[in-house]
Amino acid sequence: MSKKNVYFFGNKTAEGDPKDKNLFGGKGANLMEMTKIGLNVPPGFIITTEMCNDYYKNGGKLSDPLIKEIKDAVAKVEKSIGKKFGDSEKPLLVSVRSGARVSMPGMMDTVLNLGLNETTLVGLIKAYNNERFVYDSYRRFIQMYSDVVMGMDSDILEHILTDIKKRKGVKLDTELSDTDLKELCILFKNEVKKVMKQDFPENPYEQLTGAIEAVFRSWNNDRAKTYRKMNGYLDEWGTAVTVQSMVFGNMGDDCATGVAFTRNPSTGEHAHYGEFLVNAQGEDVVAGIRTPQPINKASIDPSNPLPTLESIMPAIYKELAGIFDLLEKHYKDMQDIEFTIEKNKLYILQTRNGKRTANAAVNIACDMYDEKLIDDKIAVLRVEPEQVEHLLHPTLDLKAAKISIAKGLPASPGAATGQIVFTAKDAEEWASQGKKVILVRHETSPEDIKGMVAAQGILTALGGMTSHAAVVARGMGKCCVSGCSALHITGKTFKLDNGKTYNEGDVITLDGSTGTVYEGDVPKIKPQLSGNFGRIMTWADKYIRLKTIRLLDPPLHEFLPHLDKEIQEVAKNMDVPVDVLKAKAKALHELNPMLGLRGCRLGITFPEIYKMQVRAIIEAACYLIKNEKMDIVPEIMIPLIGKREELILIKDYSVKEIERVIKKHGVNMKYLIGTMIELPRAAITADKIAEVAEFFSFGTNDLTQTTLGVSRDDAGTFLPEYVEKNIYQVDPFVSIDQEGVGELMKWAIEKGRATRKNIKLGICGEHGGEPRSVIFCHELGLDYVSCSPYRVPVARLAAAHAVLKG
Amino acid sequence: MSKKNVYFFGNKTAEGDPKDKNLFGGKGANLMEMTKIGLNVPPGFIITTEMCNDYYKNGGKLSDPLIKEIKDAVAKVEKSIGKKFGDSEKPLLVSVRSGARVSMPGMMDTVLNLGLNETTLVGLIKAYNNERFVYDSYRRFIQMYSDVVMGMDSDILEHILTDIKKRKGVKLDTELSDTDLKELCILFKNEVKKVMKQDFPENPYEQLTGAIEAVFRSWNNDRAKTYRKMNGYLDEWGTAVTVQSMVFGNMGDDCATGVAFTRNPSTGEHAHYGEFLVNAQGEDVVAGIRTPQPINKASIDPSNPLPTLESIMPAIYKELAGIFDLLEKHYKDMQDIEFTIEKNKLYILQTRNGKRTANAAVNIACDMYDEKLIDDKIAVLRVEPEQVEHLLHPTLDLKAAKISIAKGLPASPGAATGQIVFTAKDAEEWASQGKKVILVRHETSPEDIKGMVAAQGILTALGGMTSHAAVVARGMGKCCVSGCSALHITGKTFKLDNGKTYNEGDVITLDGSTGTVYEGDVPKIKPQLSGNFGRIMTWADKYIRLKTIRLLDPPLHEFLPHLDKEIQEVAKNMDVPVDVLKAKAKALHELNPMLGLRGCRLGITFPEIYKMQVRAIIEAACYLIKNEKMDIVPEIMIPLIGKREELILIKDYSVKEIERVIKKHGVNMKYLIGTMIELPRAAITADKIAEVAEFFSFGTNDLTQTTLGVSRDDAGTFLPEYVEKNIYQVDPFVSIDQEGVGELMKWAIEKGRATRKNIKLGICGEHGGEPRSVIFCHELGLDYVSCSPYRVPVARLAAAHAVLKG
Repeated sequence: MSKKNVYFFGNKTAEGDPKDKNLFGGKGANLMEMTKIGLNVPPGFIITTEMCNDYYKNGGKLSDPLIKEIKDAVAKVEKSIGKKFGDSEKPLLVSVRSGARVSMPGMMDTVLNLGLNETTLVGLIKAYNNERFVYDSYRRFIQMYSDVVMGMDSDILEHILTDIKKRKGVKLDTELSDTDLKELCILFKNEVKKVMKQDFPENPYEQLTGAIEAVFRSWNNDRAKTYRKMNGYLDEWGTAVTVQSMVFGNMGDDCATGVAFTRNPSTGEHAHYGEFLVNAQGEDVVAGIRTPQPINKASIDPSNPLPTLESIMPAIYKELAGIFDLLEKHYKDMQDIEFTIEKNKLYILQTRNGKRTANAAVNIACDMYDEKLIDDKIAVLRVEPEQVEHLLHPTLDLKAAKISIAKGLPASPGAATGQIVFTAKDAEEWASQGKKVILVRHETSPEDIKGMVAAQGILTALGGMTSHAAVVARGMGKCCVSGCSALHITGKTFKLDNGKTYNEGDVITLDGSTGTVYEGDVPKIKPQLSGNFGRIMTWADKYIRLKTIRLLDPPLHEFLPHLDKEIQEVAKNMDVPVDVLKAKAKALHELNPMLGLRGCRLGITFPEIYKMQVRAIIEAACYLIKNEKMDIVPEIMIPLIGKREELILIKDYSVKEIERVIKKHGVNMKYLIGTMIELPRAAITADKIAEVAEFFSFGTNDLTQTTLGVSRDDAGTFLPEYVEKNIYQVDPFVSIDQEGVGELMKWAIEKGRATRKNIKLGICGEHGGEPRSVIFCHELGLDYVSCSPYRVPVARLAAAHAVLKG
Repeated sequence: MSKKNVYFFGNKTAEGDPKDKNLFGGKGANLMEMTKIGLNVPPGFIITTEMCNDYYKNGGKLSDPLIKEIKDAVAKVEKSIGKKFGDSEKPLLVSVRSGARVSMPGMMDTVLNLGLNETTLVGLIKAYNNERFVYDSYRRFIQMYSDVVMGMDSDILEHILTDIKKRKGVKLDTELSDTDLKELCILFKNEVKKVMKQDFPENPYEQLTGAIEAVFRSWNNDRAKTYRKMNGYLDEWGTAVTVQSMVFGNMGDDCATGVAFTRNPSTGEHAHYGEFLVNAQGEDVVAGIRTPQPINKASIDPSNPLPTLESIMPAIYKELAGIFDLLEKHYKDMQDIEFTIEKNKLYILQTRNGKRTANAAVNIACDMYDEKLIDDKIAVLRVEPEQVEHLLHPTLDLKAAKISIAKGLPASPGAATGQIVFTAKDAEEWASQGKKVILVRHETSPEDIKGMVAAQGILTALGGMTSHAAVVARGMGKCCVSGCSALHITGKTFKLDNGKTYNEGDVITLDGSTGTVYEGDVPKIKPQLSGNFGRIMTWADKYIRLKTIRLLDPPLHEFLPHLDKEIQEVAKNMDVPVDVLKAKAKALHELNPMLGLRGCRLGITFPEIYKMQVRAIIEAACYLIKNEKMDIVPEIMIPLIGKREELILIKDYSVKEIERVIKKHGVNMKYLIGTMIELPRAAITADKIAEVAEFFSFGTNDLTQTTLGVSRDDAGTFLPEYVEKNIYQVDPFVSIDQEGVGELMKWAIEKGRATRKNIKLGICGEHGGEPRSVIFCHELGLDYVSCSPYRVPVARLAAAHAVLKG
């Protein structure tokens, strides 16, 4: 133990290297960095992650040399902040928190207000001039400490609290008087002694070592162990412990607490922006009981112009503004800062890159480029591809009054208002009369397409983010809310869970970006694409490697006609007896249609269907070459191939059809015949399939369904829970499952190229417009991605990110 | 061309090495081998496969040196057999056949009776004393040759044949007189000259080179090229050409033709067995117009005792019997021999290992072991695991009269007779009254199980070899015919395609080994397991490496109750409100249930189900350990895992349940928690899953469904066609698809072992009782296979084959 194990930070200096997150944990390293930049961070110290392992090796106790080091560090903190542990005048209180090298939110234990005891109470009551607040803090500290550190069943003290409220005839904790709370503290401490057979610790050092041991112990609680297993984190990493002095923004009118951004997070305007409360705790700003005040003119709400920090505490504001500039220069990004003012002294509690709207992201990136803070590469990376989608669709006016009536899934972004209709046919008819309509359905099916085109937006009671309605709506760039389970549709009316009924013709508004349904017409803001957006996209295009992002490639069509009329029509076109076709269609009732007679299987059992389609494609290509003098190389894409032999059979007859058409037209035309890779078997045997296929187009939607054994349409019953429980970090139908499906894609690419070196590779389907998937495709070395036209800017930006991050 | 390219065989000698199949083709090599053993094979010669490539290099013509070699070889054949090409007295006729290194049946061309012309006709007519037969042969030769060699449209001569039949007022070819056929030959040759602008070749050498070129050409016809592509055969292998003198068993009463086995193929009795016809061609024996005679006493049919070859031609029979012994000693297996006697001279045309019944296979193997012809390893290999199944079930008496009324799929072997019932309930009721019933259904579902148990056999109109009915029946060892599409069921009656109707209570008989349905009660032969069967199984067990073949392991049960009664019962057991359970069940309507909420997904969304099952298993185990003093290590098998995280969550709560039960009973018990690998994603990420799973059990049924993207229940609409078209050589639900699913298994095993070196591996499901799959599992190094109890002997034998073949 000759090594240093406890690292002090404070007074603009820190004993450790802020880069060493493995040793100090993410949170601790961060505090060190802020301190070193020169910010006034409440002083404290870090006990390293190595000491966590040491604690276990030492039989679940802190070693004596470590306790010695901790005491030395406490002394440094006391000196730095001018308060003392256990002091009756200026008592030092600290927080004790866990901090692993990666964030494990809520998994481990925390103790606040440590250092409170009968002695320090006195000093605090004097400082706050608020007995009630101090006793309330003390009884909370006893509850937290006895539970977390001493391991006492928390229900026991909870019962005493309930009892005293009954006795006093009150319902809420806040209704208890200062005398009640004082009595409660005594009752609590007596009960602890009775149950735990030991006094509640008065000595702050004893409190401290107990709390540190508890944090180390919590590294191995069930929750944390499961979380680590789920995320592949190792047990031996251990947690660091951060002990930091507490500062208070609620010790009088020379105190305050606030949050601020270095630039406007909603517009991107280059002006500091934030709010604060005088004589308040951090949680008061969030709680919304008191209205926060603006920090400066730029932050004033014109409808409620309150005094600014700049006007109340000009010196402090000036200091804060200087810190803003310092932080922006240091982090080269807009910062989100938490601060507390304790008796006219400014403390910075936290800084991090600020969240911002899409619009702000674009403007800030361009401004910082112009200010030479960042280059064009960083500027491109500063705009998240996911955000771009919001720039392309109308959004609801945040300030407008609105009555939210139900909540579904944000299936396709944008906002839309219209009269309710319940059938696709009505949607078409009403729209043809010039009415704006919202199509409301249990779920949609291919028969509803025309109605979906005619409607302003689509609302469904069933179906997930990747249901038919959601997928088609996104493909059309049309607003959609799906899976709105509060909707009970009967005939041409729907009822909400609360009993309220809406009829055909009633007006509603959908917000497809949040999944909210509103009554009546809610004002909207049209999408505004500024010149800055164009600048970002131009920079992005400079760096893209994935060639010519394509519009969705349709594979050979999968269909069998169902209606009598359709059957007759198709039979005529195909020169096949109607009876034969009918019998075939009837025989096709399937239990699991996803795994049934579709894709190339139709091309095997019923070759005329494919021959007809191939002829149509080639006839069209010949026409364009002959009459429009276009230079075309048609690509025939065969879906759902599982075995090389299927492709051989279909390619053989397709080539015959193609050559016949080409010969008939006497044109000179090249063409390619390839396959979709959308079954695991195709990926596994890609080397064999590449002997026949001239290109691969990954159908990642079907590939996901079969690899995971999950039907997209049925996943609604469990997949949301899977994502919620972190089994999947993200819906694998939204973003490619890289560990499973992605691994199979890698395999297929490797094998495909082994057989056919220059085989053309791409993906076809919704994933092609999803940023993480686009980046993954880039990493795999695909030649192109395909996506719906409405997602092309998203895909372009993601493709640039892929290069710039790579 | 200094190398030898044409190899003569005849006179008990052959110029080439019979082992060189790549050079001589399979057929040619075989003829050489028989000749070298000392059999009197009709002489001939082989043109090597290398000459096929040479033919193409030479611009599609035989080179002059090659023609010279061919002529020399013809001379050797002439000398050997004492006939001459183009001779008017003793004309030599030959067959010209293709022969690649592997069999490509029906893909390439053959020419028979080559050498026929105006001159040789004369000699043949004299020899046969049958003008009609010779002219019929000649007109057939002209048709075949003009089509295959000269490339003339075969319809043209077919029209002339139709015309002459019309003109003569007859319907069949066989009704034409010898004069008609003579006229036809003239008309044919004139037409060939008119259309092809060249004479039909008279010169036998010209005929021969033309035919050889045609065989080489046929190597590259479309059919053959597609076949090669489908089977992965290389174009450059080429075909050899076999030219062999034709011998005739129909030149008088000193001629005959026959087929024989060296032992009885139906009982295995060690006695020669066969039949022949005097003055006949080989095809006459098969055609069934004349009744063949037995070759010896052992072959006599007691109900129709005809004179034997032994009595008619004693010297020839003696020679033949000697050849039988020679061949058995050489090939060390029972032989199936084709022979022809031309003018008292015996020719052997072909020998191959004889097909035999299961019973014969067992007896022959044991006899040959006792005769020291083979050792016990070979004896085991001589009984095909597939055959063993037939020994375990009753079979229909082949000799009994029977009326076949419909044909379905041979879904589960055995034979059964009973009265028709149409519902599972009726099956139970009738059976409880002591009646034997056959359950007839459109298709079966889990609700029918009790009725299936009660019935003698099951007959379904829908569903394939792997439908519910088929799988369950095989599991029960019960006879089943599935997919009998001729059945039209309405209420309690079914109608056949031919209109005939059968009602409830009518008696039918099923043959589950052939898929045939018979009217009434057909006599059956009970399975007879001889002592020899026991000897074979004992030998097999000596060599098995796959440990203790297991009975089917059930994974944690997948169910949600459907009926009100069930729901109430389950809700009570689980201590969950009925409403909650009902709502859950209702929400589970699925489009693709195979890919929906099942397996471990239920264990995630509804943990109580699994907890209850785990408790039940462990309670049972504790009971057996405490009260029965049994030594048990229960294995908990989690189905449908796709991601490690699922297993972590379920294992975590299962371990808690288990430990609680163990503690309650105070027993000392080990247990294992593992997973089924039945999704591609599980196989792909097996390294990660093995961090948590203590064993893997491959669920190859589901793994096949998801890897191939084929639902077993729906595959009936296309999979039979896939097998027929050779896309799959065998139904992948019957035998593991080694190229696709098998590759994934290999990957999973490799990855699983990388993480957990000694992970226990097995398969669970129907494939575990299928011989090829068992062998594959052995090759993969699995620890065990599981199968239904009725297939255990099959699996044992297959496991021994795996070792002995490996």
